[in-house]
Amino acid sequence: MNLIQPAAPAAEELRERFRAVRAHTLELAAPLSAEDQCIQSMPDASPTKWHLAHTTWFFETVLLQPHASGYRLFDQRFPYLFNSYYEALGPRHPRPQRGLLTRPALDEVHAYRRHVDEAVLALLGTASEADWPAIEPVVTLGLHHEQQHQELILTDILHALSCNPVLPAYRPASGPALRLASVPPPVRWIERPGGVVEAGHPGPGFAFDNETPRHATLLRPHAIADRLVNCGDYAQFIADGGYQRPDLWLSDGWATVQAQGWRCPPYWLGPDDPRLVHHGAAGGWQVFGLHGVRPMEPEAPVAHLSFYEAAAYAEWAGARLPTEFEWEAAHDAPGISQMHGQVWQWTRSSYDPYPGFRPLAGVAAEYNGKFMVGQIVLRGSSVATPAGHARPSYRNFFPPAARWQFSGLRLAKDL
Amino acid sequence: MNLIQPAAPAAEELRERFRAVRAHTLELAAPLSAEDQCIQSMPDASPTKWHLAHTTWFFETVLLQPHASGYRLFDQRFPYLFNSYYEALGPRHPRPQRGLLTRPALDEVHAYRRHVDEAVLALLGTASEADWPAIEPVVTLGLHHEQQHQELILTDILHALSCNPVLPAYRPASGPALRLASVPPPVRWIERPGGVVEAGHPGPGFAFDNETPRHATLLRPHAIADRLVNCGDYAQFIADGGYQRPDLWLSDGWATVQAQGWRCPPYWLGPDDPRLVHHGAAGGWQVFGLHGVRPMEPEAPVAHLSFYEAAAYAEWAGARLPTEFEWEAAHDAPGISQMHGQVWQWTRSSYDPYPGFRPLAGVAAEYNGKFMVGQIVLRGSSVATPAGHARPSYRNFFPPAARWQFSGLRLAKDL
Amino acid sequence: MNLIQPAAPAAEELRERFRAVRAHTLELAAPLSAEDQCIQSMPDASPTKWHLAHTTWFFETVLLQPHASGYRLFDQRFPYLFNSYYEALGPRHPRPQRGLLTRPALDEVHAYRRHVDEAVLALLGTASEADWPAIEPVVTLGLHHEQQHQELILTDILHALSCNPVLPAYRPASGPALRLASVPPPVRWIERPGGVVEAGHPGPGFAFDNETPRHATLLRPHAIADRLVNCGDYAQFIADGGYQRPDLWLSDGWATVQAQGWRCPPYWLGPDDPRLVHHGAAGGWQVFGLHGVRPMEPEAPVAHLSFYEAAAYAEWAGARLPTEFEWEAAHDAPGISQMHGQVWQWTRSSYDPYPGFRPLAGVAAEYNGKFMVGQIVLRGSSVATPAGHARPSYRNFFPPAARWQFSGLRLAKDL
Amino acid sequence: MNLIQPAAPAAEELRERFRAVRAHTLELAAPLSAEDQCIQSMPDASPTKWHLAHTTWFFETVLLQPHASGYRLFDQRFPYLFNSYYEALGPRHPRPQRGLLTRPALDEVHAYRRHVDEAVLALLGTASEADWPAIEPVVTLGLHHEQQHQELILTDILHALSCNPVLPAYRPASGPALRLASVPPPVRWIERPGGVVEAGHPGPGFAFDNETPRHATLLRPHAIADRLVNCGDYAQFIADGGYQRPDLWLSDGWATVQAQGWRCPPYWLGPDDPRLVHHGAAGGWQVFGLHGVRPMEPEAPVAHLSFYEAAAYAEWAGARLPTEFEWEAAHDAPGISQMHGQVWQWTRSSYDPYPGFRPLAGVAAEYNGKFMVGQIVLRGSSVATPAGHARPSYRNFFPPAARWQFSGLRLAKDL
Repeated sequence: MNLIQPAAPAAEELRERFRAVRAHTLELAAPLSAEDQCIQSMPDASPTKWHLAHTTWFFETVLLQPHASGYRLFDQRFPYLFNSYYEALGPRHPRPQRGLLTRPALDEVHAYRRHVDEAVLALLGTASEADWPAIEPVVTLGLHHEQQHQELILTDILHALSCNPVLPAYRPASGPALRLASVPPPVRWIERPGGVVEAGHPGPGFAFDNETPRHATLLRPHAIADRLVNCGDYAQFIADGGYQRPDLWLSDGWATVQAQGWRCPPYWLGPDDPRLVHHGAAGGWQVFGLHGVRPMEPEAPVAHLSFYEAAAYAEWAGARLPTEFEWEAAHDAPGISQMHGQVWQWTRSSYDPYPGFRPLAGVAAEYNGKFMVGQIVLRGSSVATPAGHARPSYRNFFPPAARWQFSGLRLAKDL
Repeated sequence: MNLIQPAAPAAEELRERFRAVRAHTLELAAPLSAEDQCIQSMPDASPTKWHLAHTTWFFETVLLQPHASGYRLFDQRFPYLFNSYYEALGPRHPRPQRGLLTRPALDEVHAYRRHVDEAVLALLGTASEADWPAIEPVVTLGLHHEQQHQELILTDILHALSCNPVLPAYRPASGPALRLASVPPPVRWIERPGGVVEAGHPGPGFAFDNETPRHATLLRPHAIADRLVNCGDYAQFIADGGYQRPDLWLSDGWATVQAQGWRCPPYWLGPDDPRLVHHGAAGGWQVFGLHGVRPMEPEAPVAHLSFYEAAAYAEWAGARLPTEFEWEAAHDAPGISQMHGQVWQWTRSSYDPYPGFRPLAGVAAEYNGKFMVGQIVLRGSSVATPAGHARPSYRNFFPPAARWQFSGLRLAKDL
Repeated sequence: MNLIQPAAPAAEELRERFRAVRAHTLELAAPLSAEDQCIQSMPDASPTKWHLAHTTWFFETVLLQPHASGYRLFDQRFPYLFNSYYEALGPRHPRPQRGLLTRPALDEVHAYRRHVDEAVLALLGTASEADWPAIEPVVTLGLHHEQQHQELILTDILHALSCNPVLPAYRPASGPALRLASVPPPVRWIERPGGVVEAGHPGPGFAFDNETPRHATLLRPHAIADRLVNCGDYAQFIADGGYQRPDLWLSDGWATVQAQGWRCPPYWLGPDDPRLVHHGAAGGWQVFGLHGVRPMEPEAPVAHLSFYEAAAYAEWAGARLPTEFEWEAAHDAPGISQMHGQVWQWTRSSYDPYPGFRPLAGVAAEYNGKFMVGQIVLRGSSVATPAGHARPSYRNFFPPAARWQFSGLRLAKDL
Repeated sequence: MNLIQPAAPAAEELRERFRAVRAHTLELAAPLSAEDQCIQSMPDASPTKWHLAHTTWFFETVLLQPHASGYRLFDQRFPYLFNSYYEALGPRHPRPQRGLLTRPALDEVHAYRRHVDEAVLALLGTASEADWPAIEPVVTLGLHHEQQHQELILTDILHALSCNPVLPAYRPASGPALRLASVPPPVRWIERPGGVVEAGHPGPGFAFDNETPRHATLLRPHAIADRLVNCGDYAQFIADGGYQRPDLWLSDGWATVQAQGWRCPPYWLGPDDPRLVHHGAAGGWQVFGLHGVRPMEPEAPVAHLSFYEAAAYAEWAGARLPTEFEWEAAHDAPGISQMHGQVWQWTRSSYDPYPGFRPLAGVAAEYNGKFMVGQIVLRGSSVATPAGHARPSYRNFFPPAARWQFSGLRLAKDL
């Protein structure tokens, strides 16, 4: 496995990092009952319990089996159950049926995690210097992989809870804040020059293969908004008939609006929504989120948009989405804000391979490259992204109709 | 509500019966975890927890709200969640999404049951003689209703567990036997005369509206098998290419065989089934059931057949299915066996209304009548039917492709 | 092949009948262009050209190949193209793709008909007395088969033309009348006694196997309407909210109403239908039919109803549908009218086999028996039924949601 | 309408060009019967007759209605029938139902063409110098639009005929050659330098809006194959298990291979294909094309590949697809061949807007821009592309699963 110039933390640092990341996953699941952790609300989403097991299977398969001599599988049946999409690793349980796995029970999955955690920590504690170059990148990859699933735990359970007419909260609002909102300054356009810029991961440190190789790219003069589009902005788009005007939409987007009956973002509830009867909400938009149903906050970045909605909004606003290279080049521009920790930001870039891209070797070859068609790049990071996981060169990607992520937008325009 | 000559047990007897039936439902759920009780494996099946709540909602809605003065709903949101199909009672949660109801949690549903149980027992303890004729039939209907759901708890969880590649057992075989098998005598044909016979519920005692009115019907001379078709018989049908010969099948049946890839009953596993790897089974058919995976028992009645398969088997055997009236007339025929407690028996009768049929009045009008199209009558009762629930005139019904019930067949032929 | 006491017309009479029936098929197709004759508007319907060829294939396959020595197939490829559903006769072109058969061209299909016609007439002209018992029933069956397809030519093209927003007429109204309407007398209830009656084909003469064996059946006292439900009656049902009241509908029917958005019969057009813009229609219901768009005639029997709609109407009217045996018993009752030549009449009888039913031997075994599940019996005949094709014992059958036939209803009620 | 520096031919030249293009459309339809011209074999394809009418409607709507004073619509109903996807022009007949339009008949569509042709020619003959800048670009756009549909006439009818088990030829091989094959030289890799190159339409002359603005782009050093991948090459990929190896495929591609059962290009027939029975073909691959079924020619460029197949082939060959900019930059490279007139060539570029892209003004705004998501760019032109329609900057685009175009590939690789 040929990772891009990985840093080599001492073994103890890596063990500590391993413990912390693994513990955080369990903390995210803690507010949920065993029932909650078992359900799957759509094929794209997975049960919390499955995430707990799959991330564990990843370490077992990619690290322990090849590198920990004498390691024995926790359960012979788990590779079939918890492989996600690795064709090279054999057949697997059909994705849309993950919610039927009441067995293994949650307790067994916890035991599985402990079993693998102990084996990983033991391996890290005893690995020789000679083994380190083979082991460290795999552990690091596994931890970044687990962080990706930490975000999915939140987005997937939010979708699942949204399907319950009772609209239960993941965590009451009095708990640790996951609040999206901050009071943004008024929008300002930041002018950016054209010219050749470098894009992609500069190293050192970890990056996924899809961020490489770093390469030159040509920009044209443009302007980029200093902040994200917020809920107040988006409510104006709705009020102006944005969901009824085909001229604003890409063709596939308009077809989706009509087929799915979209009228607002997926977790927005209008004042006459029957589900609000038992929530005592009075007037105006309500928004369902990890803290349950709360009044729409105009200054909060709008979230859970599809690419189609982001592009239609930009058209309505007389602007456009930035390309992923414009976004990356503006990352540290003076005056720019909300680049991270709020919502992933749709770009106007399809998820194509960088020039000279080569996938990781071995099993991890399937990690990113095979998804490079039919998807759109998002940049930044969201309120659900774990601390330390984001990078200026990070390329997130989803199909253009996906709405269950914390996904929003920032405007750009030509100069 | 105009039930057919209901018996009038004393209040205390009815309270006792209520306690017993309600307790039995919980006993059936006891081997299952909260996770198990939450899942829904297909739109036709429901989660155990939903059955627990829906049967409770039935008493709350049909008995307590109209008859228990001062009764307060346990939760205002539950009628929406736990109404099954009663259009007159307002909108309801979509049937295919019952598996997403992780909230209310199982504990809350148990509390709901206790709340309603107490109210029902209190009502029965204080009802005046004048109220009795209005109350007793509703309680009795509610108990028969709950018994129907007791059977569904078993058939639905069996289907759900069958979707898990681990094939977990509902209850280990060492527990109380739910074994289908008994050693049957060799098949004998019992000759039956033609002529006018009465069919339908004769009274007194409870019956569903669809068993009435009792009426005369004309039979022709025929013969009926003294026992059920068993697994050994059915294995011969399979071995003889039964699933590959269109001439044996009804047109819709053959289309289903091809579209669904049917090759054997749904819970039979051939010797090369990959799910058997971890079960140590050696050779021959295995059958998944409430006790898990066990070798096929030739003498056990074949179960989980669709009507299409039952009809194809009969054609292959040079016989036919009995009509529901032939079945009922033969109920007490000398020498006949296995009429109850093994498998429901597909008949060659579509589920049409009896001459003069009128549905129950009020809400219960939707109980049976509105399903009288596109379904086939099954007679008898199964290993999953609660004690005391079966009757000679009982008309069970399912669509012809349904396979998740304990459904088999008995042969008949013209003389 | 064991037909029920077929009459034995002299060879010349049969040749004449053959010529007449075959010619009538072409007359029905005459108003249609080659384009019109090629399209298929839904899987249940077939192109006119396909009907022309399939009925020809039937004679070629069932009569000429086994009985005409030295007969050579017109085209080796046609059996694959024009077999409808006979599994015993090998694979065939998928039903939903019949509309893609632009080749063979219409001219070739006409040549195919001539080729087969000549061979059949030659065979009939030279068959020996010894061959006659084998030949005559097959020719007779083929002619009745062709008459069934004559009706389908009309119902299928009506559906196809209804899918064209231009709403073209099959035949201008000034042509030979296919008018449904006649001024009916006011409704009268004809009281009918209970008791044992004989049902099924009495012989002699041709009947399909599904009309046999004639057998005794028990009726209860009832009343039957002397005339059909007409469009004026049905418009009141619509105006009274019939399509919005779930209490009137069978469960499957209500689900279909909602899923398909049914609001009126399929060929009725409300005053604001956009397709009427170019038809100059003013106010009130318009009805699309073989003569194009015409104002709804209140006295015309309502047509193109599904069984679900017929049953809901009867419920709304405080009545019910007759059973197929009540209908047959009332066939010649004094005062009854509109039993034939208007619309097929849905009954409250599922299409089950008669007691003692055996299908025809040989290839024709697949003609009727294999469809005996999931369908409903209709009795009578329609405006599209060829002269001489109807019988009191005739059992037509369609699935309960089918609407493209000339299907209506007559009311009955218990006494 | 702001086209990019259109050339301004004299009126007579444009009239001549108009006559020639319009006549060529009819020539392409000439081998087809009215039946052939009416069918639609899948939602993505359209009937020939519809193409004839739609291209006419385009001139009527975009040219005659705004610019020809006193022009009267040929038929008020045609705009609804023959609008393709222009939301701004009102509702339209559903795309998947175009095959049901037997009316207007082919003759009427021919009359429609004549009516519009006369009006266009008259307008061009009388237009003043002042009107010319408004008129000429629209006529030119309409002619290029018609040429695009000329290609679709061929690809759509080829698909339709391929659905007929008789596999009829569009035109016998003895007719004017549409042969794909030419004997290519052995493959050679042409090395190409990196650096800044200009891409996009340089002007003058016509181009679609999606080819603009011309802009600088950065290339890296690479090599590009001098010729197309041919059928012989592709047969090796098949023989090597290319369709059975998930490691070669993009994830969506592999899912499609499995869901659709792909085993070879769509019009290839293996030696045991039942449709070959009546074609007398002996051994080896056969290929269905516009000339009917013919033996696979190893030296012919492989056609009718999806992007998924093209990308999998490139992976198998240890190469990759060129980007659209690499392709364009290599257009006139010494030694390169088969850039045009054979097959459209899938690139590794998603169909994103060029920097600074603005769609055409007015109705034509919907021409290209709204499709810029979820599609892949193809470059070059095919055997079905009309003479004079291709350009180095031409961007064709289709979804990655599309297979009914004449689409193939050329390899590239990094240096």
